[in-house]
Amino acid sequence: MTTHKRQTEGPECPSSVGWTTARQLTLADSEHPFALEAGGSLDAVEVEFEDYGTLNAQRDNAVLICHALSGDAHAAGWDAQAEVSGRNWRIRKPGWWDAMIGPGKPIDTRRWYVICANVLGSCYGTTGPASLDPTTGRPYGPRFPVVMVEDWVRLQARLLDHLGIDRLHAVVGGSLGGQQALEWALAFPGRVGKAVILAAAPRLSAQGLAFNAVGRYSILHDEHFRQGDYYDHQPPARGLAAARMLAHITYLSEQGMHHKFGRRLQDKDRPDFGFGVEFAVESYLEYQGRAFVERFDANSYLYITRAMDYYDPAARYGDGDLTTACRRISAQVLTVSFSTDWLYTPQQAKEFVGAMCACGKSVTYVDLPSPYGHDAFLVETERLGRILHSFLAAGGRP
Amino acid sequence: MTTHKRQTEGPECPSSVGWTTARQLTLADSEHPFALEAGGSLDAVEVEFEDYGTLNAQRDNAVLICHALSGDAHAAGWDAQAEVSGRNWRIRKPGWWDAMIGPGKPIDTRRWYVICANVLGSCYGTTGPASLDPTTGRPYGPRFPVVMVEDWVRLQARLLDHLGIDRLHAVVGGSLGGQQALEWALAFPGRVGKAVILAAAPRLSAQGLAFNAVGRYSILHDEHFRQGDYYDHQPPARGLAAARMLAHITYLSEQGMHHKFGRRLQDKDRPDFGFGVEFAVESYLEYQGRAFVERFDANSYLYITRAMDYYDPAARYGDGDLTTACRRISAQVLTVSFSTDWLYTPQQAKEFVGAMCACGKSVTYVDLPSPYGHDAFLVETERLGRILHSFLAAGGRP
Repeated sequence: MTTHKRQTEGPECPSSVGWTTARQLTLADSEHPFALEAGGSLDAVEVEFEDYGTLNAQRDNAVLICHALSGDAHAAGWDAQAEVSGRNWRIRKPGWWDAMIGPGKPIDTRRWYVICANVLGSCYGTTGPASLDPTTGRPYGPRFPVVMVEDWVRLQARLLDHLGIDRLHAVVGGSLGGQQALEWALAFPGRVGKAVILAAAPRLSAQGLAFNAVGRYSILHDEHFRQGDYYDHQPPARGLAAARMLAHITYLSEQGMHHKFGRRLQDKDRPDFGFGVEFAVESYLEYQGRAFVERFDANSYLYITRAMDYYDPAARYGDGDLTTACRRISAQVLTVSFSTDWLYTPQQAKEFVGAMCACGKSVTYVDLPSPYGHDAFLVETERLGRILHSFLAAGGRP
Repeated sequence: MTTHKRQTEGPECPSSVGWTTARQLTLADSEHPFALEAGGSLDAVEVEFEDYGTLNAQRDNAVLICHALSGDAHAAGWDAQAEVSGRNWRIRKPGWWDAMIGPGKPIDTRRWYVICANVLGSCYGTTGPASLDPTTGRPYGPRFPVVMVEDWVRLQARLLDHLGIDRLHAVVGGSLGGQQALEWALAFPGRVGKAVILAAAPRLSAQGLAFNAVGRYSILHDEHFRQGDYYDHQPPARGLAAARMLAHITYLSEQGMHHKFGRRLQDKDRPDFGFGVEFAVESYLEYQGRAFVERFDANSYLYITRAMDYYDPAARYGDGDLTTACRRISAQVLTVSFSTDWLYTPQQAKEFVGAMCACGKSVTYVDLPSPYGHDAFLVETERLGRILHSFLAAGGRP
């Protein structure tokens, strides 16, 4: 069942997970269309996923990892195909959570069979707005249907059906991935043993909606956007870069930015007095914007941030009341917030924990002190790793 | 000396300050150029200002008001010339601090002679990038020199020289205006009796620099920006709107946004599922963006945010040490921060107050609990007004 393998030629892989190769599966076709929450359906859905470790004979040791906004299925190991597939940003870099997943690591692949799938609407191998619409032979572009967190989770369930996995030992995710983990616990209470929700809350705040709105405004009004039909032309790179720069501010804490950059000038002793890069923090943001444009599709950014906006399980499952919604949950839940995260705040996490407690559900909560803001779920791998390792193992072997 | 007057025709003015008419003065010409901190000089500088109340015989009752990023000289009363001058956004609206300035108001014009001047580089009557360069007869555009907070204050001093005012009873400002008030106390210790610094800190944080950088990025990369030479063409409206939308998020608190908008949909019961306006907070931001583009020049936005970035009195006057810088101050200082202001935080205000205390200077500090974030200095007029009124009056009549 495992797809990661050592490359037969080339250098030794620096990750204990080894070289990985993603797989793609067709999970919807014209005979089995995939219906969407917001309306419409897709007659062709490919899903890209990676897996690490081995599914046991009882098929009860699977752990599903859910990625965040700009993530992909390549959670661990080194991509053996990066050069061939043109995914150059993956060359000489491990998967986005390699520190957490692998033999002897917090999510231990000697024990767990770990799966990570790219979400619908993304641009990393799962069907999205840049994919070809089979009815026209051209990219969907703006004709791609609106997707929601609920769709992602139902599609992941379809993937598990295909892999012969009835029940997950655990589902784990940070940020938008944490919202998927929560949705798993709500939508499929019988299929989830444990749900780990990191740096996430049941819904985005008004301020979070506002940041997403400004990011999308920049993309939608980029001269190259062409109403989303830009695939034969220059992409709306400046709009996407601006959206990413802005989002990056929300991923770091004020305190973290102060320590990392402060008001330090970039490679000079005195300012140039102009509108180019003066301060180190400007240089950092522009770099982040440029790098993102090389690897992400602007339409995917629109669709995925909109999914983030819409997610509201209290509305869907509780008629506006989170406690009512939580009554559906039977998974053991672990929630970790990070003290300086201001995108999904500890306060929001506590509201969720309060709702879980109010309906007598099993919930473990840690507010981890960290200067790294929202990004902490990607950075605080050591302390977070210890918590995750214990939580996944608790209750004996599956 | 007063310029505000009742219109001879037309309706009764709804403000007790009455109808106001701004004045323009030439404060630099080729024989008296105005040298700039960052280098270069201007051979032609006009300054637009308004004044309210009457300068007394001793010429010692003047209070200078310093405006913030997007403000202007029209601080109080109703602009009698708004329709004639095409400043339509001023029609049927009082000046930006009308609640604070006027007869019987916190800054009482029966007692104080109040002046407010538009800053250099702005687009409201004082020379800026949209002004005609006398050497070419065309707008300066990107050839306008970089201006700094220190320049604004020196130009205001030149205005006071012209008006025959040696010493200010007080200088008062919020946000970037508060930084001007601080600069007054530092640069002209002999000319300032009291300095009132509201919702401001001695310098912008790394996070503040980052927000300004993203806003400027949007303007600089707008297809209509044309390296700043857009005055004969369509202006870079989308870039400026995006910058303003983003800035607006930083002016409100998360708490304030939650109470004002939450996740409420805009005029509908269920989402449209698309990329138009769905949430009330999106509608608000887009409105703010559109309205700003009608009244502000994108180049001015670049120059003024850069001035905000550069301001760092600890570096200039204290070799990096704020306490050393504060030793220059002889004014009595009042600082007010607002509990939910995250652009210029209470923590930053306290660092300044600590520096003042460390060198034995007179400082009064209030951290006003308010849900209105950075905007509180414009909104909390009642509670702030009481504090200001007492502080200005303390110590007997001038």
